[in-house]
Amino acid sequence: MGAPPPTPYLRVDLARLRRNVRRAADRATRARVALRPHVKTHKSIEIARLQLSSGAVGITVATIAEAELFARLGCTDVFIAFPLWVDDRAARRLRDLAGAAAVAIGVDSVAGAANAGRLLGGSGVEVLVEVDSGQHRSGARPADAGAVALAAQRSGVPVRGVFTFPGHSYAPDALVSSARDESAALAEARDAVTALGIEVRVVSGGSTPSLAAADTDVLTEVRPGVYVFGDAQQWELGAMRREDIALTCRATVVSHAGGRLVLDSGSKVLGADRAAYATGYGRLLDHPDARIVQLSEHHAVVDLVGTALPVLGSQLDVVPNHVCAAVNLADELWVQEARSMRAWQVSARGLNA
Amino acid sequence: MGAPPPTPYLRVDLARLRRNVRRAADRATRARVALRPHVKTHKSIEIARLQLSSGAVGITVATIAEAELFARLGCTDVFIAFPLWVDDRAARRLRDLAGAAAVAIGVDSVAGAANAGRLLGGSGVEVLVEVDSGQHRSGARPADAGAVALAAQRSGVPVRGVFTFPGHSYAPDALVSSARDESAALAEARDAVTALGIEVRVVSGGSTPSLAAADTDVLTEVRPGVYVFGDAQQWELGAMRREDIALTCRATVVSHAGGRLVLDSGSKVLGADRAAYATGYGRLLDHPDARIVQLSEHHAVVDLVGTALPVLGSQLDVVPNHVCAAVNLADELWVQEARSMRAWQVSARGLNA
Repeated sequence: MGAPPPTPYLRVDLARLRRNVRRAADRATRARVALRPHVKTHKSIEIARLQLSSGAVGITVATIAEAELFARLGCTDVFIAFPLWVDDRAARRLRDLAGAAAVAIGVDSVAGAANAGRLLGGSGVEVLVEVDSGQHRSGARPADAGAVALAAQRSGVPVRGVFTFPGHSYAPDALVSSARDESAALAEARDAVTALGIEVRVVSGGSTPSLAAADTDVLTEVRPGVYVFGDAQQWELGAMRREDIALTCRATVVSHAGGRLVLDSGSKVLGADRAAYATGYGRLLDHPDARIVQLSEHHAVVDLVGTALPVLGSQLDVVPNHVCAAVNLADELWVQEARSMRAWQVSARGLNA
Repeated sequence: MGAPPPTPYLRVDLARLRRNVRRAADRATRARVALRPHVKTHKSIEIARLQLSSGAVGITVATIAEAELFARLGCTDVFIAFPLWVDDRAARRLRDLAGAAAVAIGVDSVAGAANAGRLLGGSGVEVLVEVDSGQHRSGARPADAGAVALAAQRSGVPVRGVFTFPGHSYAPDALVSSARDESAALAEARDAVTALGIEVRVVSGGSTPSLAAADTDVLTEVRPGVYVFGDAQQWELGAMRREDIALTCRATVVSHAGGRLVLDSGSKVLGADRAAYATGYGRLLDHPDARIVQLSEHHAVVDLVGTALPVLGSQLDVVPNHVCAAVNLADELWVQEARSMRAWQVSARGLNA
C-alpha cells in the first residue's frame, strides 16, 4: 500500500465518506425510517460495513451476483431491487442465497410474480412489488400493485411490500416534485395491496436527489446509493455540496494541445454518462468553473476558464458525472486518510448477472 | 465452458470476427500499407493473435499497462498511441518493456518530447509525433511537428515518424472528409520533420470509419480498432454493415412496463456512450427499427416499432453503441462458433494506467 498508483485512479476521501454515511444514517433515525443503502454505487464490502455499523437495516443490490458476493462477505439482509425474470438457474441461486441471508426480489407484473412464485415458493425469498412513480422505466402502475401482489401470494411467495425508484429526481428542479410523486405512487400501491387483505410491511423508495424531501409519513424505508460519494450529477442537481464529494479520479495533465487542458482520465475510468442536464462530461474538484468538454476513452479535454493551465505532468482531481459508473470500471479504490493511502477492492465490479 | 452464462453477457460471432479481421488485412495488403490494429477495442490476446497471424505488423495500445500485458503474452511490437507524460516510474516501466518488445510512444509537445528523451534516452524506446488532423483532442499542429521531433531527437530518443487519430470521422458524412484531413495533416507533419533532416519512417493514421477512404499514398500504417467487432456507431455511420457486427450483448426481457420492452442490459454492460449523431443508447441486431430510448445501470428500455413485444424471459441480441466501452466492462467474451461456446478473457480490461 502506501504509494498511490499511476494515474488515472479513483481516490476516496475517507473523512468525507464517513461524514456522508453518518449524515444519512442520522437523518433516517430522526425520520424513523429504515435505511437500506444501494451498494451498487460502491460495490465494496468495507463501505457496506460502514453503512451497516451506522444503523442500516440491510443492503440493496441490483443483481443476483451482487447479492451472492455481499452475502458471502457477511451481509445477512439483501434486497435485489430489480424486476428479475426468474428461470431455473436463477431460482437455484436464489434458494442457495436464502440459506445465508434474508432475501427479497422485485416483481412488476402478474406474469413475473406468478413465475417467481412457481420457482421460489417455500424458499424463504420474499417479493416487493415495483411500481412506476414517474421515471417510466420498470414498475407496474400503482393501481395494479394489488393484482401483482395477489399473483405472488397465490403462487407461493410472501409479499413484503411495495417499492419504487423515483429516477426522475435526476432532473433540474425535480428534487421535491419527484419525492411527491414517489409518495403518491407508493401510497396508492400500498392501499391497493392492503385492500386485497395482503399486509404491506415495507414501503420502500428513495434516491439520493429525492432523499431530503422523501415523505417519511408514507415511506418506511429508503434506498439511496450515491450519497456515500457524491458526483458531478449530485453537485449540479444541488443534491450534494462540492465539499461533500468523497470520490475523485486522480488524473495527469498530458497535453496543452489547442491551449486546453488534456487529462489522462478518459471514459474508460470516468464512464461516458452525460445526462441531458449535465454541463459537461465531468468537472474538476478544485476548479468549479472548469468543464470536461470532450471525452474519449483515454482523454478528457477540459475548458478551464480564466486560469493559467496547470503544467504538464501535474495532477488534478476530476469529479465523474456518475460515480456508480466510474466505480464499476475500477478494480480498487485508493482510500486516503490524512497522509496514508490504502486500497479497497471493488469486489462486486462487473457482477451484472 | 459449453453453457452460456446468465444474461447480460457479451457474445462474439467467431465467423464474423474472422471475416472482419481478414478483410482489413487483405485491404492493407492490397494498399501496401502496414496494419497495426488498436487492441483497446478487444483487450484479448486471442484476437491480437488472429490479427498478427493475418499479417498485422504489430499492435497499438493506449496505456503502458496494456503494453505490458500484451508484451507479456507475446506481442513483440507495441505502439502506445497516446501523448504520455513520462515520469520516473513510467520511464522504469517503459525501459523494462523495451527489453521485451519494440516500443514506441506518442509525444505532442516540445516539452513532452524533451522530457521523454531525458528519461528514455538509450532505452530503445522510439517516439512518434502526434498531430491534430481535425478532432481537436490532443496532437501538435502539423506545422509544429518538426519542432517536436527535433526536441525528441536532441534529447536522445529516436523519432520513428508521425501519427494522428482522425476522430472527427465519427460524424455523419465525415468518412471521406476526415480521411482527407488526415492525409493533409500527416503530409504536412511528415514534410516539417523531414525538412529538419529527420527521417520519417512511419506515417500512421486510421480509424475504422475513415479506413476505407484512407490515403495510402501518404499513410504507411493504419491503426483501426473497432473493425473487428463493429457496433451501433459504425452501423449508423455507414462504416460497417449490420451483417458484419460480430459482438452483441445477450439480454433478457424482464418487463413490459408501459407497453415497452425492458431488458437487463444496462449501462454497466453496454456503456453509456451516446454520440451526438446516435439515434439511441444501442440497437437490437434483429430489429433494425428498434432503439434503446432509456438506459440506466441495469435497465435498457426499448421502443420496438410495429412488432409484438417478445415475451418476458426471452433473450435478444443488443448492439452496443461503442463496443470498446462494452468490452472494457466485461471480464470475458463468450465466443460462439457453430453451436459451441467458449470464454475468452478480456485480459487487459481496466488497464488504464
